[in-house]
Amino acid sequence: MTAGATDPRKTTEDWWRTGIIDMGPGVLRYRGYPIEDLIRQRVSLAQMIWLLTRGELPTRIQGELLEAALMSAVDHGPQAPSIAIARMAATCGVGLNSAMASAVNVLGDVHGGAGEQAVELYQAIADRIAAGASEADAVQAGLDTFVAAHGKVIPGFGHRFHPVDPRSAPLLELVDAAAGRGEVDGRFARIGRAVEANLSSRKGKPIPMNIDGATAVIYAELGFPAPLARGLFCLSRSVGVLAHAWEQMQQGGRIKGPIPRQYIPTYDGPLARQVPAQR
Amino acid sequence: MTAGATDPRKTTEDWWRTGIIDMGPGVLRYRGYPIEDLIRQRVSLAQMIWLLTRGELPTRIQGELLEAALMSAVDHGPQAPSIAIARMAATCGVGLNSAMASAVNVLGDVHGGAGEQAVELYQAIADRIAAGASEADAVQAGLDTFVAAHGKVIPGFGHRFHPVDPRSAPLLELVDAAAGRGEVDGRFARIGRAVEANLSSRKGKPIPMNIDGATAVIYAELGFPAPLARGLFCLSRSVGVLAHAWEQMQQGGRIKGPIPRQYIPTYDGPLARQVPAQR
Amino acid sequence: MTAGATDPRKTTEDWWRTGIIDMGPGVLRYRGYPIEDLIRQRVSLAQMIWLLTRGELPTRIQGELLEAALMSAVDHGPQAPSIAIARMAATCGVGLNSAMASAVNVLGDVHGGAGEQAVELYQAIADRIAAGASEADAVQAGLDTFVAAHGKVIPGFGHRFHPVDPRSAPLLELVDAAAGRGEVDGRFARIGRAVEANLSSRKGKPIPMNIDGATAVIYAELGFPAPLARGLFCLSRSVGVLAHAWEQMQQGGRIKGPIPRQYIPTYDGPLARQVPAQR
Amino acid sequence: MTAGATDPRKTTEDWWRTGIIDMGPGVLRYRGYPIEDLIRQRVSLAQMIWLLTRGELPTRIQGELLEAALMSAVDHGPQAPSIAIARMAATCGVGLNSAMASAVNVLGDVHGGAGEQAVELYQAIADRIAAGASEADAVQAGLDTFVAAHGKVIPGFGHRFHPVDPRSAPLLELVDAAAGRGEVDGRFARIGRAVEANLSSRKGKPIPMNIDGATAVIYAELGFPAPLARGLFCLSRSVGVLAHAWEQMQQGGRIKGPIPRQYIPTYDGPLARQVPAQR
Repeated sequence: MTAGATDPRKTTEDWWRTGIIDMGPGVLRYRGYPIEDLIRQRVSLAQMIWLLTRGELPTRIQGELLEAALMSAVDHGPQAPSIAIARMAATCGVGLNSAMASAVNVLGDVHGGAGEQAVELYQAIADRIAAGASEADAVQAGLDTFVAAHGKVIPGFGHRFHPVDPRSAPLLELVDAAAGRGEVDGRFARIGRAVEANLSSRKGKPIPMNIDGATAVIYAELGFPAPLARGLFCLSRSVGVLAHAWEQMQQGGRIKGPIPRQYIPTYDGPLARQVPAQR
Repeated sequence: MTAGATDPRKTTEDWWRTGIIDMGPGVLRYRGYPIEDLIRQRVSLAQMIWLLTRGELPTRIQGELLEAALMSAVDHGPQAPSIAIARMAATCGVGLNSAMASAVNVLGDVHGGAGEQAVELYQAIADRIAAGASEADAVQAGLDTFVAAHGKVIPGFGHRFHPVDPRSAPLLELVDAAAGRGEVDGRFARIGRAVEANLSSRKGKPIPMNIDGATAVIYAELGFPAPLARGLFCLSRSVGVLAHAWEQMQQGGRIKGPIPRQYIPTYDGPLARQVPAQR
Repeated sequence: MTAGATDPRKTTEDWWRTGIIDMGPGVLRYRGYPIEDLIRQRVSLAQMIWLLTRGELPTRIQGELLEAALMSAVDHGPQAPSIAIARMAATCGVGLNSAMASAVNVLGDVHGGAGEQAVELYQAIADRIAAGASEADAVQAGLDTFVAAHGKVIPGFGHRFHPVDPRSAPLLELVDAAAGRGEVDGRFARIGRAVEANLSSRKGKPIPMNIDGATAVIYAELGFPAPLARGLFCLSRSVGVLAHAWEQMQQGGRIKGPIPRQYIPTYDGPLARQVPAQR
Repeated sequence: MTAGATDPRKTTEDWWRTGIIDMGPGVLRYRGYPIEDLIRQRVSLAQMIWLLTRGELPTRIQGELLEAALMSAVDHGPQAPSIAIARMAATCGVGLNSAMASAVNVLGDVHGGAGEQAVELYQAIADRIAAGASEADAVQAGLDTFVAAHGKVIPGFGHRFHPVDPRSAPLLELVDAAAGRGEVDGRFARIGRAVEANLSSRKGKPIPMNIDGATAVIYAELGFPAPLARGLFCLSRSVGVLAHAWEQMQQGGRIKGPIPRQYIPTYDGPLARQVPAQR
């Protein structure tokens, strides 16, 4: 008879086992590090994000790259559904927590998933290179495979609003600098640029890397699994979501609709009719 | 006839006016600062949070204090409803965005509001001091007023699990250091400590400042309005929420309930009975 | 040694005790009624809502009144934030469950709380009558007290869009009919109408009872505690939320913003400026 | 010059066009039916759900079948993550709307998607039969295809807790009765039973149809597209979610964790260690 199999308290406590946080009265350790040491040694928020999701502290440069990626994607204005939702929620009588939740919730496959999908695309290409393909062949085959499976919208490239996304170049500069110092490999920056070149050649016009493609280069260089790219984007966008919800609270308004109050959505359904008496 | 009153496009665009982000094709400026400059000048995530919520960039020290507050509150383990919810959600077939949303959503008045309430308490005491009261009188009257309005649970002090919260002392050390260099005033650190002393005297036992009381000192020193203290906590806790949702995805499981699978919640309702035929 | 105090399995199972549902292998009883009987005896959805929230089955007329209240509040179109949010969410790559969640979440104090507040108002007036006041005095004092506490917006009366809410009269007819047969008391219908008359007299123009005021009459007649009026409204509005999310999925679109794609929210913040080198 | 192309007000109003609801001052029509008529003619909640999602009113029998499906899936107790989440949320200082939202949100592919997937499976089999296959062959091929694509868990069949789900038989009885009167076709009831028989034969033990498989029979018989099966389940489960959140509010408690307060989740991460000075 073993204790683990028969002690219901242990069974219950094991149901919620974790390697992230170790708690005792007066004790809080994250991945083994006491919280008071993490505070006193000035561990940054980005380093803490890394520690909790990856298990170890990053190097200084790794932390800075993560920080830049998180900082650069915080907001894209009220035309983004996530931001509009946060602002409308803020006029409905819920707290900032709920305004943030309704907003972050919609960062799904289409609105928030491009970074995750771009990491997957880059990794698939990297796998082909690792298996012996040339970079050009790997990119060509990787894109063909992606288009066959998911259609012609390539996550991380092109933007319906920006001819050139102003965030991509400075983010890639940071990766290049880190690669120059041997802090990251640099192969995902090469793959990202090769995808951009290939796409522009396919389409006959520039299809520049956008914020999702650039942050995906960083996340891939740093070794984050693809789903975490979406999680990290959610953290990043939560900043803009909070700021817009708060600005809306300052502006005031009650039950803010999507269009000015005096406008009425167009109705295109059946004409007025009577409810049938016999149903 | 004025253009603003009659141009429906402008009316529509004005419905969503914002001072946070200025967008044009290829242009993204936050509070007037081009995003490429913010990236190249290594503006940190905490500085960006400040910029978006406050309108200006913080000083270096202000940014570091904000960063420490955000970093220190990321997680308190699976017994916190927010964390348990994130982990259960992660086994239900939703993305990390939705797991995070369901979790952050519950950081309401009771689970996530202590920091906001502590800032309000500190500010009410500071207002009494500014109006001429002594610190001791202001704290006494501020606490009496709070208890009369909200009951005996004082937000930011005492902890049901930690006899002493290991996060409070190192956070106050940072405030003291910043105050010593004239970067912050230090009066909210004094008020926080005076509240702690007054409470311990009232109860006849130590009622130490907890993480909410300590981060509230920082947020008050930095001039954040009270509701933003909750918003900032939501950003901070989102980190732990993400990490736990991700860990749960690695552990696997489908439709994880709160207690081990073979356990059944106790039923304390009516005995088995027949549905009456005539209702 | 008592079993309850020392058996950790029982402690764990008791942590989740409920009087709503009794489960065993092959057994599901709600408030004591076997599910197969509830199905075979054609218990309606509205009756099931009553059973789960109140503990007993309603009479047929009670169930019909509840049903009418739930049926009549399902939707108020895309200018309601809850509906707009559902539609935007549906274009972001999340499931219907998440589109519904982001929407229902914003039915807070302002957007979804009017019914709850109206029940509170009616009950406060009924308490005054029960304590001996005349109906006229109770209404006058009840409204004065409410305005002093909450301001001049009276929940359940007046509508920014409808001069007369077309849902109120037919709902009150149902209450009158039920009262005529002794199925409900009718006093909350009287109180609701007296509030309407008093308000119109105060303002010098009609302030008609709206959907929230009318459903609150029904919920108060049926004995629902005020907070459940909000919960029931959430159930009701979930129907419209689902229908609009689904219609949007049929219409298509990706990452639908609140205003037409080519429009850009007005920026009213600082002019373009340089990031200071020293911070 | 056409009005539609150039009138920004119309452009804005068209951005939110809908066939569900037609609004004017004092006018509310759903799919063309005035709300006052819908109320006076006692349209049920289930009929309204049908009207809004399908565009027309159902027959009486169709409405009753929908009602039975909705009524029978409202709750499966606190071991369901959706219910546990609602109860924990109710102790965190948010309204019932937010407790419901956090809960419904997790009815994703795994927790809430079985009905949708079962409808898809049934329809795929029906398509094979319509194309000329025998029922036995269509079921065999349909299951083989499903297993190849999604793995061996067949949505709608088998239950980890119930040897026989007590809800399935009475629901199928209702379908049989409706089919006997020609109100529905009955082919999906046949397909569902054939799947059950085939699975039991494959596994060598009974794999009975569960609530998701039975409600999927109803939804398929009624012609609901598969994704709406999930949406309808969300409506249904919202009832249990509300009831449990409300019961928890009555029980009280603050910041309810998943396991009894004195229990601490097992930590299985790195041992206590020092933060490295140089990072």
